[in-house]
Amino acid sequence: MAPRGASRLVDELGTLLLGAPLPLSVRCWDGSETVVEGAPTLVVRHRRALRRLVHAPGELGLARAYVSGDLDIEGDLYTVLSLPDQLPARPDLHVDRRALARLGGRLLGAGVLGPPPAPPPEEARVRGTRHSVQRDRQAVSHHYDVGNEFYRLLLGPSLVYSCAYFPEPTATLEQAQEAKLDLVCRKLGLEPGMRLLDVGCGWGSFALHAAARYGVSVTAVTISAAQVALARERVADAGLAGRVDVRLQDYREVDDGPFDAIASVGMAEHVGLAQLPAYAARLHALLAPGGRLLNHAIARGPAAGPDRPDPGSFLTRYVFPDGELQPLATHVRVLEEAGFEVCDVEALRRHYALTCRAWVRNLEQRWDEAVRLSSPGRARVWRLYLAGSALAFEGRRTGVNQVLAVKPGGDSRLPLRRPDWSRTANRDRADDGDSTSS
Amino acid sequence: MAPRGASRLVDELGTLLLGAPLPLSVRCWDGSETVVEGAPTLVVRHRRALRRLVHAPGELGLARAYVSGDLDIEGDLYTVLSLPDQLPARPDLHVDRRALARLGGRLLGAGVLGPPPAPPPEEARVRGTRHSVQRDRQAVSHHYDVGNEFYRLLLGPSLVYSCAYFPEPTATLEQAQEAKLDLVCRKLGLEPGMRLLDVGCGWGSFALHAAARYGVSVTAVTISAAQVALARERVADAGLAGRVDVRLQDYREVDDGPFDAIASVGMAEHVGLAQLPAYAARLHALLAPGGRLLNHAIARGPAAGPDRPDPGSFLTRYVFPDGELQPLATHVRVLEEAGFEVCDVEALRRHYALTCRAWVRNLEQRWDEAVRLSSPGRARVWRLYLAGSALAFEGRRTGVNQVLAVKPGGDSRLPLRRPDWSRTANRDRADDGDSTSS
Repeated sequence: MAPRGASRLVDELGTLLLGAPLPLSVRCWDGSETVVEGAPTLVVRHRRALRRLVHAPGELGLARAYVSGDLDIEGDLYTVLSLPDQLPARPDLHVDRRALARLGGRLLGAGVLGPPPAPPPEEARVRGTRHSVQRDRQAVSHHYDVGNEFYRLLLGPSLVYSCAYFPEPTATLEQAQEAKLDLVCRKLGLEPGMRLLDVGCGWGSFALHAAARYGVSVTAVTISAAQVALARERVADAGLAGRVDVRLQDYREVDDGPFDAIASVGMAEHVGLAQLPAYAARLHALLAPGGRLLNHAIARGPAAGPDRPDPGSFLTRYVFPDGELQPLATHVRVLEEAGFEVCDVEALRRHYALTCRAWVRNLEQRWDEAVRLSSPGRARVWRLYLAGSALAFEGRRTGVNQVLAVKPGGDSRLPLRRPDWSRTANRDRADDGDSTSS
Repeated sequence: MAPRGASRLVDELGTLLLGAPLPLSVRCWDGSETVVEGAPTLVVRHRRALRRLVHAPGELGLARAYVSGDLDIEGDLYTVLSLPDQLPARPDLHVDRRALARLGGRLLGAGVLGPPPAPPPEEARVRGTRHSVQRDRQAVSHHYDVGNEFYRLLLGPSLVYSCAYFPEPTATLEQAQEAKLDLVCRKLGLEPGMRLLDVGCGWGSFALHAAARYGVSVTAVTISAAQVALARERVADAGLAGRVDVRLQDYREVDDGPFDAIASVGMAEHVGLAQLPAYAARLHALLAPGGRLLNHAIARGPAAGPDRPDPGSFLTRYVFPDGELQPLATHVRVLEEAGFEVCDVEALRRHYALTCRAWVRNLEQRWDEAVRLSSPGRARVWRLYLAGSALAFEGRRTGVNQVLAVKPGGDSRLPLRRPDWSRTANRDRADDGDSTSS
């Protein structure tokens, strides 16, 4: 009886948490199975998976079970992650705790109850005041200091960890990242000799592109020690040590302005709503009059509903501690209130979905290597969050926008028409998408 | 003594109101003059001009004096209108009423005091609840029902009364308006057979362009009776009566959706902050899933400071009663909260400065005809407000933005990259600025 019992219990537990029959096959630690034709299989490798769910019903319990390996998925991960959208309730909502208690007795019979298991070691522990310089460093370190070779595998040779810009959906990730880097350079109107500040420079790919192709000198800052190490190595290899200065520095600590242009790509998500005005004011103070700021950030989509940072969410516990997403309107308001003139907004939501799917492919194609370069839990965290992110962009729960803003008081040299921006520098780039044939 | 006295008094009054010596030559009703070398001349044609200022110190008094003709300007109007920005205080702020009272005695001596003169007939009188359908009609009628031939003179043959899109600063207004109409069509991805709603259609120029060039059928609504009359005439002349339906209808009264696309160009400025959410919700309800909205509206610039609608302002009393400008961030927020996905924002501030200056030129070049087609006061109102608007756009006190938004739930057919938008329709338009050579 036990085998049937185990998978039946999982079925009932799933139904309870999802608010509908579990549309998945289930295979349990004891070999028991329930089959749903054509559906992916939920593999419960250990009783502990259920125990984690009982002690943390919903998203956190599921995340801990999956990250620890007590729970696994066979078949298409996207199909499984899309289930909540097709079900009456999201797994993290409206759990009937009394029904759960009634089920508890039978779970006890199945021997799955017991003390709460320790969370997997990949769970984040950040301390201090939210969005203080010290705590932001811990939060950033948690996500970015996990092995540069792991990121090389995930991101590919471009080593760009933000939304790419796909000429066509079929373009390679490398082509799309190259196009993105160049798009940002052109929006900023970079020209030889200009001083560029790159806030949240990652592994230095944008700084390298701007310095090598547009002849600017770049101050590139990040608070990830691992990123600084590899970025400096890459700058030296490129022979650009004289033109790219990579620093382990918080945006609040940069004080050697004015810069002619500022790029902030995929960094504002770490700033937090409370700090956004100070962030915008700091960038405004660091920019020369007439200088341009390109603020490229993920945003909450109109379908996302009200923002309530969930300390129990998988993203907060495992991926981006203290990460916060705001609607586009908030980014625009904060920039305007800091004194910027917002000149252009380009939404790249669909490009980020394509980007995330490309990263997931990189990870799945070299899974064993990825595990070796990080940890089984880490590889699972990145696979889960990136597949989930792809779906979030496709479902408009999140978007991503490039906001181009100018600091009044000087000549921004911004051409009257957007199609002409690509001609502000590198007039030989007639082959790129933004150039005109007129 | 009196002549010297009169112009000296004007000098002192000007100094008092401006908070600095009046940097203008002055010529008074009695022939008295004070000369400032190379400065434009303030012509006080009648004592009444001063009386208006005494009874309504600041902007309103100046406006009444100018509109009535009691006050005039010889020389460059832009120079005079730029003075406040170069002076410690704006004329509408911080009037020292006690110093004004002291001056009153001497003004009495000069025989300029007396009962408050009646405001010029061009001053607006709107009644009812702010932004009710009824009062909005009065407000719109005040500005737009002043003679179609006057507007033809002002706007030129394109008859487009919104920001143009200049391929180069030297392009003609006609070329720039044509480029703007086509830009909006391409952003909306118009294709033959689509149903387009044009909210605030003016004299029908955009509806005509969209129907003739893109083969859509257009429902064009305005609450200006004069606009409806001429728009219908132009539609009939173009033989497009079957494809363009011009209606005297408020946006709140349109109920025959869904439309495949909606254009709102230069209309949201009349909606008012309190009504903006209802406005966005109505457009959202009228749009088919996947349909695009192009919301083109003047915005308060970052340099504008906090919004406090001033019932005594020249713009409210003479130009746009109940007109309200919001920052770009507010427009984006309202659209997102209504359920739209904001896909693109293009700031056209400098284009509107060029547009206003072109309109002022049209007016000044055919001044006598303009006066005949409207009234001396009206011609002065439009000259003053358009010259002032050009300076406001140049000084970033106001901006203007095209916000492209999509209603989720269907395929927006929006190409991945902006340069490709121009290829969604009319593939033969390779000569336009937004098309690509790739």
